[in-house]
Amino acid sequence: MNAPTTGSPSPAPVTLVGCGPGAADLLTLRALRAIEQADVLVYDNLIGEDILHFARPDAERIYVGKQASRHTLPQEEINALLVRLAQAGRRTARLKGGDPFIFGRGGEEMDALRAAGIAVEIIPGITAAAACAAAAGIPLTHREEARSLVLTTGHGKPGADEPDWAALVRPGQTVAFYMGVSNAGEIAAQLLRHGMAGTMPVAIIERGATPRQRIHAATLATLVARLSEAGVKAPALLIVGNVAARVADGR
Amino acid sequence: MNAPTTGSPSPAPVTLVGCGPGAADLLTLRALRAIEQADVLVYDNLIGEDILHFARPDAERIYVGKQASRHTLPQEEINALLVRLAQAGRRTARLKGGDPFIFGRGGEEMDALRAAGIAVEIIPGITAAAACAAAAGIPLTHREEARSLVLTTGHGKPGADEPDWAALVRPGQTVAFYMGVSNAGEIAAQLLRHGMAGTMPVAIIERGATPRQRIHAATLATLVARLSEAGVKAPALLIVGNVAARVADGR
Ligand SMILES: C[S@@+](CC[C@H](N)C(=O)[O-])C[C@H]1O[C@@H](n2cnc3c(N)ncnc32)[C@H](O)[C@@H]1O
Ligand SMILES: C[S@@+](CC[C@H](N)C(=O)[O-])C[C@H]1O[C@@H](n2cnc3c(N)ncnc32)[C@H](O)[C@@H]1O
Repeated sequence: MNAPTTGSPSPAPVTLVGCGPGAADLLTLRALRAIEQADVLVYDNLIGEDILHFARPDAERIYVGKQASRHTLPQEEINALLVRLAQAGRRTARLKGGDPFIFGRGGEEMDALRAAGIAVEIIPGITAAAACAAAAGIPLTHREEARSLVLTTGHGKPGADEPDWAALVRPGQTVAFYMGVSNAGEIAAQLLRHGMAGTMPVAIIERGATPRQRIHAATLATLVARLSEAGVKAPALLIVGNVAARVADGR
Repeated sequence: MNAPTTGSPSPAPVTLVGCGPGAADLLTLRALRAIEQADVLVYDNLIGEDILHFARPDAERIYVGKQASRHTLPQEEINALLVRLAQAGRRTARLKGGDPFIFGRGGEEMDALRAAGIAVEIIPGITAAAACAAAAGIPLTHREEARSLVLTTGHGKPGADEPDWAALVRPGQTVAFYMGVSNAGEIAAQLLRHGMAGTMPVAIIERGATPRQRIHAATLATLVARLSEAGVKAPALLIVGNVAARVADGR
Protein backbone atom coordinates (compact mmCIF):
# COMPACT_ATOMS: atom_id res chain seq x y z
CA MET A 1 0.00 0.00 0.00
CA ASN A 2 2.86 2.41 0.72
CA ALA A 3 4.63 3.87 -2.27
CA PRO A 4 8.26 3.25 -1.24
CA THR A 5 9.74 5.81 -3.61
CA THR A 6 7.74 8.71 -2.19
CA GLY A 7 8.14 7.81 1.48
CA SER A 8 5.13 7.58 3.78
CA PRO A 9 1.61 8.21 2.51
CA SER A 10 -0.02 11.41 3.70
CA PRO A 11 -1.91 10.86 6.92
CA ALA A 12 -5.65 10.30 6.66
CA PRO A 13 -8.05 12.06 9.01
CA VAL A 14 -9.59 10.01 11.81
CA THR A 15 -13.30 10.17 12.56
CA LEU A 16 -14.58 9.66 16.10
CA VAL A 17 -18.05 8.33 15.45
CA GLY A 18 -20.75 8.60 18.10
CA CYS A 19 -22.80 5.42 17.61
CA GLY A 20 -25.55 5.95 20.15
CA PRO A 21 -26.78 3.46 22.74
CA GLY A 22 -26.56 0.34 20.59
CA ALA A 23 -29.76 0.33 18.51
CA ALA A 24 -28.76 0.50 14.85
CA ASP A 25 -31.62 2.86 14.00
CA LEU A 26 -30.36 5.38 16.53
CA LEU A 27 -27.27 5.94 14.39
CA THR A 28 -27.31 9.29 12.65
CA LEU A 29 -27.12 9.44 8.87
CA ARG A 30 -23.67 11.01 9.22
CA ALA A 31 -22.41 8.20 11.44
CA LEU A 32 -23.80 5.62 9.04
CA ARG A 33 -21.93 7.18 6.13
CA ALA A 34 -18.66 7.31 8.09
CA ILE A 35 -18.99 3.62 8.96
CA GLU A 36 -19.76 2.69 5.35
CA GLN A 37 -16.73 4.58 4.06
CA ALA A 38 -14.08 3.50 6.55
CA ASP A 39 -11.08 1.35 5.64
CA VAL A 40 -10.62 0.38 9.30
CA LEU A 41 -13.04 0.33 12.23
CA VAL A 42 -11.70 0.47 15.77
CA TYR A 43 -14.38 -0.47 18.29
CA ASP A 44 -15.11 -1.80 21.75
CA ASN A 45 -17.84 -3.38 23.88
CA LEU A 46 -20.66 -0.94 23.41
CA ILE A 47 -20.69 -1.43 19.63
CA GLY A 48 -22.74 -4.40 18.47
CA GLU A 49 -22.88 -6.50 15.32
CA ASP A 50 -25.97 -4.53 14.16
CA ILE A 51 -23.78 -1.49 13.74
CA LEU A 52 -20.62 -3.20 12.50
CA HIS A 53 -22.50 -4.84 9.67
CA PHE A 54 -22.85 -1.44 7.95
CA ALA A 55 -19.09 -1.52 7.28
CA ARG A 56 -17.70 -2.52 3.90
CA PRO A 57 -17.05 -6.26 3.70
CA ASP A 58 -13.36 -5.59 3.05
CA ALA A 59 -12.97 -3.10 5.93
CA GLU A 60 -10.67 -4.21 8.70
CA ARG A 61 -12.19 -4.44 12.19
CA ILE A 62 -10.00 -3.96 15.22
CA TYR A 63 -11.50 -4.78 18.60
CA VAL A 64 -9.96 -2.86 21.50
CA GLY A 65 -12.46 -3.71 24.23
CA LYS A 66 -12.39 -6.03 27.20
CA GLN A 67 -11.39 -9.61 26.51
CA ALA A 68 -11.73 -12.77 28.61
CA SER A 69 -7.98 -13.12 29.03
CA ARG A 70 -7.07 -9.55 29.85
CA HIS A 71 -8.32 -6.03 30.41
CA THR A 72 -9.21 -3.38 27.88
CA LEU A 73 -6.33 -2.13 25.77
CA PRO A 74 -4.83 0.78 27.75
CA GLN A 75 -5.98 4.15 26.43
CA GLU A 76 -2.41 5.09 25.41
CA GLU A 77 -2.22 2.02 23.19
CA ILE A 78 -5.54 2.88 21.56
CA ASN A 79 -4.29 6.41 20.93
CA ALA A 80 -1.06 5.07 19.43
CA LEU A 81 -2.98 2.61 17.25
CA LEU A 82 -5.18 5.41 15.86
CA VAL A 83 -2.11 7.52 15.11
CA ARG A 84 -0.42 4.61 13.30
CA LEU A 85 -3.50 3.83 11.20
CA ALA A 86 -3.88 7.47 10.19
CA GLN A 87 -0.19 7.78 9.37
CA ALA A 88 -0.50 4.74 7.14
CA GLY A 89 -3.09 6.71 5.19
CA ARG A 90 -6.01 4.49 6.11
CA ARG A 91 -9.44 6.00 6.58
CA THR A 92 -10.15 5.16 10.22
CA ALA A 93 -13.50 5.27 12.02
CA ARG A 94 -13.15 5.06 15.78
CA LEU A 95 -16.59 3.87 16.88
CA LYS A 96 -17.69 5.11 20.30
CA GLY A 97 -20.80 4.15 22.25
CA GLY A 98 -23.18 7.08 22.76
CA ASP A 99 -21.50 10.43 22.18
CA PRO A 100 -17.69 10.53 21.77
CA PHE A 101 -17.31 13.49 24.12
CA ILE A 102 -19.48 12.28 27.01
CA PHE A 103 -17.58 9.80 29.22
CA GLY A 104 -16.10 8.16 26.17
CA ARG A 105 -12.48 9.32 26.44
CA GLY A 106 -12.91 10.75 22.97
CA GLY A 107 -11.25 13.94 24.19
CA GLU A 108 -8.06 12.06 24.96
CA GLU A 109 -8.10 10.40 21.55
CA MET A 110 -8.66 13.73 19.81
CA ASP A 111 -5.86 15.39 21.81
CA ALA A 112 -3.41 12.58 20.99
CA LEU A 113 -4.26 12.61 17.28
CA ARG A 114 -3.98 16.38 17.01
CA ALA A 115 -0.66 16.33 18.87
CA ALA A 116 0.57 13.96 16.13
CA GLY A 117 -0.62 16.39 13.45
CA ILE A 118 -3.59 14.31 12.39
CA ALA A 119 -6.95 15.87 11.53
CA VAL A 120 -9.90 14.65 13.57
CA GLU A 121 -13.57 14.81 12.75
CA ILE A 122 -16.12 14.29 15.52
CA ILE A 123 -19.59 12.96 14.82
CA PRO A 124 -21.88 13.46 17.81
CA GLY A 125 -24.07 10.57 18.95
CA ILE A 126 -27.14 9.95 21.08
CA THR A 127 -25.76 9.76 24.59
CA ALA A 128 -27.06 7.14 27.03
CA ALA A 129 -28.98 9.71 29.11
CA ALA A 130 -31.05 10.86 26.13
CA ALA A 131 -31.57 7.32 24.84
CA CYS A 132 -32.56 5.89 28.21
CA ALA A 133 -34.82 8.83 29.11
CA ALA A 134 -36.67 8.47 25.81
CA ALA A 135 -37.04 4.73 26.30
CA ALA A 136 -38.34 5.15 29.84
CA GLY A 137 -40.50 8.23 29.23
CA ILE A 138 -38.54 10.41 31.65
CA PRO A 139 -38.22 14.09 30.72
CA LEU A 140 -34.66 14.98 31.76
CA THR A 141 -35.60 18.62 32.20
CA HIS A 142 -39.09 19.79 33.00
CA ARG A 143 -40.45 23.25 33.54
CA GLU A 144 -41.71 22.46 37.02
CA GLU A 145 -39.42 19.69 38.15
CA ALA A 146 -35.90 20.06 36.77
CA ARG A 147 -34.25 23.11 35.28
CA SER A 148 -30.81 21.48 35.07
CA LEU A 149 -29.46 18.11 34.04
CA VAL A 150 -26.18 16.78 35.41
CA LEU A 151 -24.33 13.93 33.72
CA THR A 152 -21.73 12.36 35.98
CA THR A 153 -20.21 9.06 37.08
CA GLY A 154 -20.12 9.00 40.88
CA HIS A 155 -16.62 7.55 40.61
CA GLY A 156 -13.41 8.90 42.09
CA LYS A 157 -11.50 8.53 45.31
CA PRO A 158 -11.84 10.84 48.31
CA GLY A 159 -9.48 13.74 47.76
CA ALA A 160 -8.97 15.64 44.54
CA ASP A 161 -11.17 13.62 42.20
CA GLU A 162 -13.97 12.74 44.60
CA PRO A 163 -17.42 13.48 43.18
CA ASP A 164 -18.82 16.79 44.33
CA TRP A 165 -21.69 15.17 46.22
CA ALA A 166 -23.05 18.44 47.59
CA ALA A 167 -23.53 19.76 44.05
CA LEU A 168 -25.47 16.60 43.13
CA VAL A 169 -28.15 16.95 45.81
CA ARG A 170 -29.41 20.40 44.81
CA PRO A 171 -33.19 20.64 44.29
CA GLY A 172 -34.65 21.09 40.84
CA GLN A 173 -32.14 19.05 38.91
CA THR A 174 -31.95 15.60 37.36
CA VAL A 175 -28.74 13.60 37.76
CA ALA A 176 -27.82 10.81 35.37
CA PHE A 177 -25.09 8.48 36.60
CA TYR A 178 -23.03 6.73 33.94
CA MET A 179 -21.09 3.59 34.90
CA GLY A 180 -22.87 3.73 38.25
CA VAL A 181 -24.00 0.14 38.82
CA SER A 182 -20.88 -1.26 40.47
CA ASN A 183 -20.67 1.87 42.59
CA ALA A 184 -24.34 2.29 43.47
CA GLY A 185 -23.86 1.59 47.17
CA GLU A 186 -21.46 4.50 47.51
CA ILE A 187 -23.61 6.77 45.32
CA ALA A 188 -26.75 6.12 47.38
CA ALA A 189 -24.93 6.47 50.71
CA GLN A 190 -23.29 9.75 49.74
CA LEU A 191 -26.44 11.32 48.30
CA LEU A 192 -28.35 10.39 51.46
CA ARG A 193 -25.53 11.69 53.64
CA HIS A 194 -25.59 14.99 51.74
CA GLY A 195 -29.30 15.42 52.38
CA MET A 196 -31.18 13.87 49.48
CA ALA A 197 -34.43 12.21 50.56
CA GLY A 198 -34.56 8.42 50.64
CA THR A 199 -37.86 8.69 48.74
CA MET A 200 -36.18 10.37 45.75
CA PRO A 201 -37.18 8.37 42.64
CA VAL A 202 -34.42 6.54 40.78
CA ALA A 203 -34.91 4.86 37.42
CA ILE A 204 -32.52 2.09 36.40
CA ILE A 205 -32.24 1.61 32.66
CA GLU A 206 -30.28 -1.44 31.64
CA ARG A 207 -29.10 -1.74 28.01
CA GLY A 208 -31.48 1.09 27.14
CA ALA A 209 -32.80 1.24 23.58
CA THR A 210 -31.57 -2.27 22.79
CA PRO A 211 -33.69 -5.41 22.39
CA ARG A 212 -32.53 -6.56 25.82
CA GLN A 213 -33.60 -3.35 27.58
CA ARG A 214 -34.92 -3.62 31.13
CA ILE A 215 -36.26 -0.74 33.20
CA HIS A 216 -36.63 -0.81 36.97
CA ALA A 217 -38.09 1.73 39.37
CA ALA A 218 -36.50 2.37 42.74
CA THR A 219 -35.90 5.12 45.23
CA LEU A 220 -32.62 6.25 46.68
CA ALA A 221 -33.38 4.10 49.74
CA THR A 222 -34.20 0.95 47.74
CA LEU A 223 -31.68 1.34 44.91
CA VAL A 224 -29.06 -1.12 46.08
CA ALA A 225 -31.57 -3.84 46.92
CA ARG A 226 -33.37 -3.33 43.62
CA LEU A 227 -30.15 -3.61 41.61
CA SER A 228 -29.17 -6.83 43.27
CA GLU A 229 -32.59 -8.50 43.28
CA ALA A 230 -33.04 -7.66 39.59
CA GLY A 231 -29.47 -8.72 38.81
CA VAL A 232 -28.73 -5.51 36.91
CA LYS A 233 -25.49 -5.52 34.95
CA ALA A 234 -23.59 -2.83 33.02
CA PRO A 235 -24.25 -1.03 30.79
CA ALA A 236 -26.96 0.63 32.80
CA LEU A 237 -27.84 4.22 33.59
CA LEU A 238 -29.25 5.57 36.85
CA ILE A 239 -31.55 8.59 36.57
CA VAL A 240 -32.07 10.30 39.91
CA GLY A 241 -34.68 13.01 40.33
CA ASN A 242 -38.37 13.80 40.66
CA VAL A 243 -38.86 13.33 36.91
CA ALA A 244 -38.04 9.63 37.38
CA ALA A 245 -41.31 9.14 39.30
CA ARG A 246 -42.99 8.58 35.92
CA VAL A 247 -41.40 5.16 35.59
CA ALA A 248 -43.49 2.15 36.46
CA ASP A 249 -41.53 -0.91 37.45
CA GLY A 250 -40.99 -3.97 35.30
CA ARG A 251 -41.41 -2.45 31.85
CA MET B 1 -61.42 9.33 6.60
CA ASN B 2 -63.74 8.90 9.57
CA ALA B 3 -66.25 6.11 9.44
CA PRO B 4 -69.36 8.00 10.57
CA THR B 5 -71.33 4.89 11.53
CA THR B 6 -68.74 3.77 14.08
CA GLY B 7 -68.17 7.10 15.79
CA SER B 8 -64.70 8.55 16.31
CA PRO B 9 -61.64 6.79 14.94
CA SER B 10 -59.35 5.21 17.50
CA PRO B 11 -56.64 7.64 18.60
CA ALA B 12 -53.28 7.34 16.88
CA PRO B 13 -50.07 7.44 18.88
CA VAL B 14 -48.03 10.65 18.77
CA THR B 15 -44.29 10.55 18.21
CA LEU B 16 -42.06 13.24 19.72
CA VAL B 17 -39.16 13.24 17.31
CA GLY B 18 -35.76 14.57 18.35
CA CYS B 19 -34.41 16.19 15.18
CA GLY B 20 -30.94 17.23 16.34
CA PRO B 21 -29.33 20.64 15.85
CA GLY B 22 -30.61 21.34 12.36
CA ALA B 23 -28.25 19.44 10.04
CA ALA B 24 -30.29 16.89 8.12
CA ASP B 25 -27.55 14.26 8.34
CA LEU B 26 -27.63 14.44 12.14
CA LEU B 27 -31.11 12.95 12.11
CA THR B 28 -31.18 9.38 13.33
CA LEU B 29 -32.50 6.65 11.07
CA ARG B 30 -35.42 6.26 13.47
CA ALA B 31 -36.31 9.96 13.29
CA LEU B 32 -36.09 9.88 9.51
CA ARG B 33 -38.53 7.00 9.34
CA ALA B 34 -41.00 8.71 11.69
CA ILE B 35 -40.90 11.86 9.55
CA GLU B 36 -41.42 9.87 6.35
CA GLN B 37 -44.41 8.03 7.78
CA ALA B 38 -46.28 10.90 9.43
CA ASP B 39 -49.69 12.17 8.26
CA VAL B 40 -49.12 15.47 10.07
CA LEU B 41 -45.93 17.25 11.17
CA VAL B 42 -46.09 19.81 13.95
CA TYR B 43 -42.90 21.88 14.07
CA ASP B 44 -41.34 25.17 15.13
CA ASN B 45 -38.33 27.42 14.56
CA LEU B 46 -35.48 24.99 15.10
CA ILE B 47 -36.70 22.69 12.32
CA GLY B 48 -35.51 23.68 8.86
CA GLU B 49 -36.61 22.89 5.32
CA ASP B 50 -33.80 20.29 5.00
CA ILE B 51 -35.58 18.17 7.55
CA LEU B 52 -39.17 18.91 6.52
CA HIS B 53 -38.51 17.81 2.98
CA PHE B 54 -38.26 14.19 4.16
CA ALA B 55 -42.02 14.27 4.83
CA ARG B 56 -44.50 12.75 2.39
CA PRO B 57 -45.67 15.32 -0.16
CA ASP B 58 -49.25 14.87 1.03
CA ALA B 59 -48.41 15.22 4.73
CA GLU B 60 -49.87 18.25 6.46
CA ARG B 61 -47.40 20.66 8.04
CA ILE B 62 -48.45 22.75 11.02
CA TYR B 63 -46.12 25.50 12.14
CA VAL B 64 -46.42 26.41 15.83
CA GLY B 65 -43.34 28.59 16.19
CA LYS B 66 -42.77 32.29 16.50
CA GLN B 67 -44.41 34.48 13.89
CA ALA B 68 -43.85 38.09 12.93
CA SER B 69 -47.29 39.14 14.09
CA ARG B 70 -47.45 37.32 17.39
CA HIS B 71 -45.63 35.09 19.84
CA THR B 72 -45.22 31.36 19.78
CA LEU B 73 -48.42 29.38 20.19
CA PRO B 74 -48.81 28.93 23.94
CA GLN B 75 -47.69 25.50 25.12
CA GLU B 76 -51.24 24.60 26.25
CA GLU B 77 -52.52 25.19 22.73
CA ILE B 78 -49.79 23.01 21.26
CA ASN B 79 -50.68 20.27 23.73
CA ALA B 80 -54.38 20.57 22.83
CA LEU B 81 -53.57 20.49 19.10
CA LEU B 82 -51.55 17.28 19.50
CA VAL B 83 -54.39 15.68 21.45
CA ARG B 84 -56.92 16.65 18.76
CA LEU B 85 -54.77 15.33 15.91
CA ALA B 86 -54.23 12.03 17.72
CA GLN B 87 -57.92 11.70 18.54
CA ALA B 88 -58.72 12.24 14.87
CA GLY B 89 -56.63 9.12 14.22
CA ARG B 90 -53.88 10.94 12.34
CA ARG B 91 -50.29 9.78 12.65
CA THR B 92 -48.64 12.83 14.17
CA ALA B 93 -44.92 13.58 14.35
CA ARG B 94 -44.12 16.40 16.73
CA LEU B 95 -40.69 17.58 15.53
CA LYS B 96 -38.44 18.96 18.26
CA GLY B 97 -35.02 20.59 17.88
CA GLY B 98 -32.24 18.60 19.55
CA ASP B 99 -33.54 16.07 22.03
CA PRO B 100 -37.24 16.21 23.02
CA PHE B 101 -36.49 15.84 26.73
CA ILE B 102 -33.72 18.44 27.05
CA PHE B 103 -35.15 21.97 27.31
CA GLY B 104 -37.71 21.16 24.67
CA ARG B 105 -40.88 21.03 26.76
CA GLY B 106 -41.35 17.53 25.43
CA GLY B 107 -42.12 16.38 28.96
CA GLU B 108 -45.14 18.66 29.10
CA GLU B 109 -46.37 17.40 25.74
CA MET B 110 -45.92 13.78 26.80
CA ASP B 111 -47.73 14.39 30.11
CA ALA B 112 -50.67 16.10 28.37
CA LEU B 113 -51.01 13.35 25.76
CA ARG B 114 -50.85 10.57 28.32
CA ALA B 115 -53.40 12.35 30.49
CA ALA B 116 -55.72 12.25 27.46
CA GLY B 117 -55.12 8.51 27.07
CA ILE B 118 -52.93 8.82 24.02
CA ALA B 119 -49.82 6.68 23.52
CA VAL B 120 -46.58 8.60 23.07
CA GLU B 121 -43.35 7.41 21.52
CA ILE B 122 -40.17 9.40 22.14
CA ILE B 123 -37.29 9.38 19.68
CA PRO B 124 -34.14 10.82 21.24
CA GLY B 125 -32.11 13.35 19.27
CA ILE B 126 -28.64 14.88 19.24
CA THR B 127 -28.89 17.66 21.79
CA ALA B 128 -27.25 21.04 21.11
CA ALA B 129 -24.47 20.45 23.66
CA ALA B 130 -23.28 17.28 21.92
CA ALA B 131 -23.65 18.78 18.44
CA CYS B 132 -21.86 22.02 19.30
CA ALA B 133 -19.08 20.30 21.23
CA ALA B 134 -18.41 17.98 18.30
CA ALA B 135 -18.40 20.90 15.87
CA ALA B 136 -16.02 22.93 18.04
CA GLY B 137 -13.77 20.06 19.14
CA ILE B 138 -14.58 20.47 22.83
CA PRO B 139 -14.69 17.30 24.91
CA LEU B 140 -17.58 17.88 27.31
CA THR B 141 -16.10 15.53 29.85
CA HIS B 142 -12.41 14.80 30.11
CA ARG B 143 -10.49 12.58 32.50
CA GLU B 144 -8.32 15.42 33.79
CA GLU B 145 -10.51 18.46 33.25
CA ALA B 146 -14.21 17.70 33.70
CA ARG B 147 -15.80 14.75 35.39
CA SER B 148 -19.32 16.18 35.19
CA LEU B 149 -21.37 17.98 32.58
CA VAL B 150 -24.22 20.31 33.53
CA LEU B 151 -26.88 21.35 31.01
CA THR B 152 -28.82 24.38 32.17
CA THR B 153 -30.33 27.67 31.04
CA GLY B 154 -29.27 30.38 33.46
CA HIS B 155 -32.84 31.70 33.34
CA GLY B 156 -35.21 32.20 36.24
CA LYS B 157 -36.03 34.97 38.62
CA PRO B 158 -34.48 35.42 42.05
CA GLY B 159 -36.50 33.33 44.47
CA ALA B 160 -37.74 29.81 43.92
CA ASP B 161 -36.65 29.30 40.32
CA GLU B 162 -33.39 31.23 40.36
CA PRO B 163 -30.50 29.24 38.90
CA ASP B 164 -28.38 27.55 41.52
CA TRP B 165 -25.30 29.62 40.71
CA ALA B 166 -23.18 28.12 43.47
CA ALA B 167 -23.65 24.65 41.98
CA LEU B 168 -22.53 25.94 38.57
CA VAL B 169 -19.12 27.24 39.70
CA ARG B 170 -17.79 23.97 41.10
CA PRO B 171 -14.37 22.93 39.77
CA GLY B 172 -13.99 19.98 37.42
CA GLN B 173 -17.22 20.40 35.52
CA THR B 174 -18.34 21.74 32.18
CA VAL B 175 -21.50 23.84 32.02
CA ALA B 176 -23.48 24.24 28.79
CA PHE B 177 -25.99 27.09 28.80
CA TYR B 178 -28.98 26.70 26.51
CA MET B 179 -30.91 29.84 25.52
CA GLY B 180 -28.18 31.87 27.19
CA VAL B 181 -27.41 34.63 24.68
CA SER B 182 -30.01 37.17 25.74
CA ASN B 183 -29.15 36.49 29.35
CA ALA B 184 -25.36 36.33 29.08
CA GLY B 185 -24.77 39.49 31.12
CA GLU B 186 -26.52 38.01 34.12
CA ILE B 187 -24.88 34.61 33.65
CA ALA B 188 -21.37 36.09 33.54
CA ALA B 189 -21.99 38.43 36.47
CA GLN B 190 -23.40 35.67 38.66
CA LEU B 191 -20.70 33.14 37.87
CA LEU B 192 -18.03 35.76 38.67
CA ARG B 193 -19.83 36.75 41.84
CA HIS B 194 -19.95 33.12 42.93
CA GLY B 195 -16.20 32.76 42.48
CA MET B 196 -15.54 31.55 38.96
CA ALA B 197 -12.35 33.03 37.48
CA GLY B 198 -12.69 35.73 34.82
CA THR B 199 -10.13 33.77 32.79
CA MET B 200 -12.42 30.72 32.56
CA PRO B 201 -12.73 29.81 28.86
CA VAL B 202 -16.15 30.14 27.23
CA ALA B 203 -16.95 28.89 23.74
CA ILE B 204 -19.87 30.43 21.88
CA ILE B 205 -21.34 28.18 19.24
CA GLU B 206 -23.92 29.85 17.04
CA ARG B 207 -26.18 27.66 14.87
CA GLY B 208 -23.86 24.75 15.57
CA ALA B 209 -23.69 21.99 12.98
CA THR B 210 -25.57 24.03 10.40
CA PRO B 211 -24.10 25.68 7.28
CA ARG B 212 -24.28 29.04 9.03
CA GLN B 213 -22.31 27.89 12.07
CA ARG B 214 -19.99 30.39 13.76
CA ILE B 215 -17.72 29.65 16.69
CA HIS B 216 -16.21 32.31 18.95
CA ALA B 217 -13.75 32.02 21.81
CA ALA B 218 -14.12 34.17 24.92
CA THR B 219 -13.54 34.06 28.64
CA LEU B 220 -16.03 34.72 31.37
CA ALA B 221 -14.67 38.29 31.58
CA THR B 222 -14.93 38.97 27.83
CA LEU B 223 -18.12 37.04 27.09
CA VAL B 224 -20.55 39.93 26.91
CA ALA B 225 -18.29 42.09 24.74
CA ARG B 226 -17.54 39.16 22.45
CA LEU B 227 -21.24 38.38 21.97
CA SER B 228 -22.07 41.94 21.06
CA GLU B 229 -19.08 42.65 18.84
CA ALA B 230 -19.68 39.41 16.93
CA GLY B 231 -23.42 40.08 16.77
CA VAL B 232 -24.29 36.62 18.06
CA LYS B 233 -27.94 35.68 17.78
CA ALA B 234 -29.98 32.71 19.02
CA PRO B 235 -29.81 29.78 18.65
CA ALA B 236 -26.41 29.66 20.27
CA LEU B 237 -24.88 27.59 23.02
CA LEU B 238 -22.36 28.74 25.63
CA ILE B 239 -19.88 26.12 26.86
CA VAL B 240 -18.13 27.22 30.04
CA GLY B 241 -15.17 25.27 31.40
CA ASN B 242 -11.50 24.46 31.03
CA VAL B 243 -12.27 22.10 28.15
CA ALA B 244 -13.37 25.13 26.09
CA ALA B 245 -9.75 26.38 25.99
CA ARG B 246 -9.28 24.17 22.90
CA VAL B 247 -11.35 26.54 20.79
CA ALA B 248 -9.50 28.99 18.59
CA ASP B 249 -11.45 32.09 17.71
CA GLY B 250 -13.04 32.78 14.36
CA ARG B 251 -13.48 29.23 13.08
C1 LIG C 1 -17.81 4.47 29.13
S1 LIG C 1 -19.42 5.15 29.32
C2 LIG C 1 -19.70 5.68 27.66
C3 LIG C 1 -20.85 6.64 27.53
C4 LIG C 1 -21.13 7.04 26.10
N1 LIG C 1 -20.02 7.79 25.54
C5 LIG C 1 -22.41 7.85 25.97
O1 LIG C 1 -22.36 9.04 25.61
O2 LIG C 1 -23.48 7.26 26.23
C6 LIG C 1 -20.38 3.69 29.48
C7 LIG C 1 -21.63 3.89 30.32
O3 LIG C 1 -22.63 4.54 29.55
C8 LIG C 1 -23.91 4.07 29.95
N2 LIG C 1 -24.54 3.42 28.78
C9 LIG C 1 -24.04 3.30 27.56
N3 LIG C 1 -24.92 2.67 26.75
C10 LIG C 1 -26.01 2.40 27.50
C11 LIG C 1 -27.26 1.78 27.25
N4 LIG C 1 -27.58 1.29 26.04
N5 LIG C 1 -28.13 1.70 28.27
C12 LIG C 1 -27.83 2.17 29.48
N6 LIG C 1 -26.68 2.77 29.77
C13 LIG C 1 -25.77 2.89 28.79
C14 LIG C 1 -23.70 3.09 31.07
O4 LIG C 1 -23.81 3.79 32.29
C15 LIG C 1 -22.29 2.63 30.82
O5 LIG C 1 -21.67 2.14 31.99
C1 LIG D 1 -35.68 25.60 23.45
S1 LIG D 1 -34.03 25.07 23.54
C2 LIG D 1 -34.20 23.50 22.76
C3 LIG D 1 -33.03 22.58 23.01
C4 LIG D 1 -33.15 21.25 22.28
N1 LIG D 1 -34.28 20.48 22.78
C5 LIG D 1 -31.88 20.46 22.35
O1 LIG D 1 -31.87 19.37 22.97
O2 LIG D 1 -30.87 20.88 21.79
C6 LIG D 1 -33.25 26.08 22.32
C7 LIG D 1 -31.80 26.35 22.63
O3 LIG D 1 -31.00 25.23 22.27
C8 LIG D 1 -29.75 25.66 21.81
N2 LIG D 1 -29.58 25.21 20.41
C9 LIG D 1 -30.45 24.51 19.68
N3 LIG D 1 -29.96 24.27 18.45
C10 LIG D 1 -28.74 24.84 18.41
C11 LIG D 1 -27.72 24.93 17.43
N4 LIG D 1 -27.85 24.38 16.21
N5 LIG D 1 -26.59 25.60 17.75
C12 LIG D 1 -26.43 26.16 18.97
N6 LIG D 1 -27.36 26.09 19.93
C13 LIG D 1 -28.50 25.44 19.66
C14 LIG D 1 -29.72 27.17 21.90
O4 LIG D 1 -29.16 27.52 23.14
C15 LIG D 1 -31.19 27.49 21.84
O5 LIG D 1 -31.47 28.74 22.45
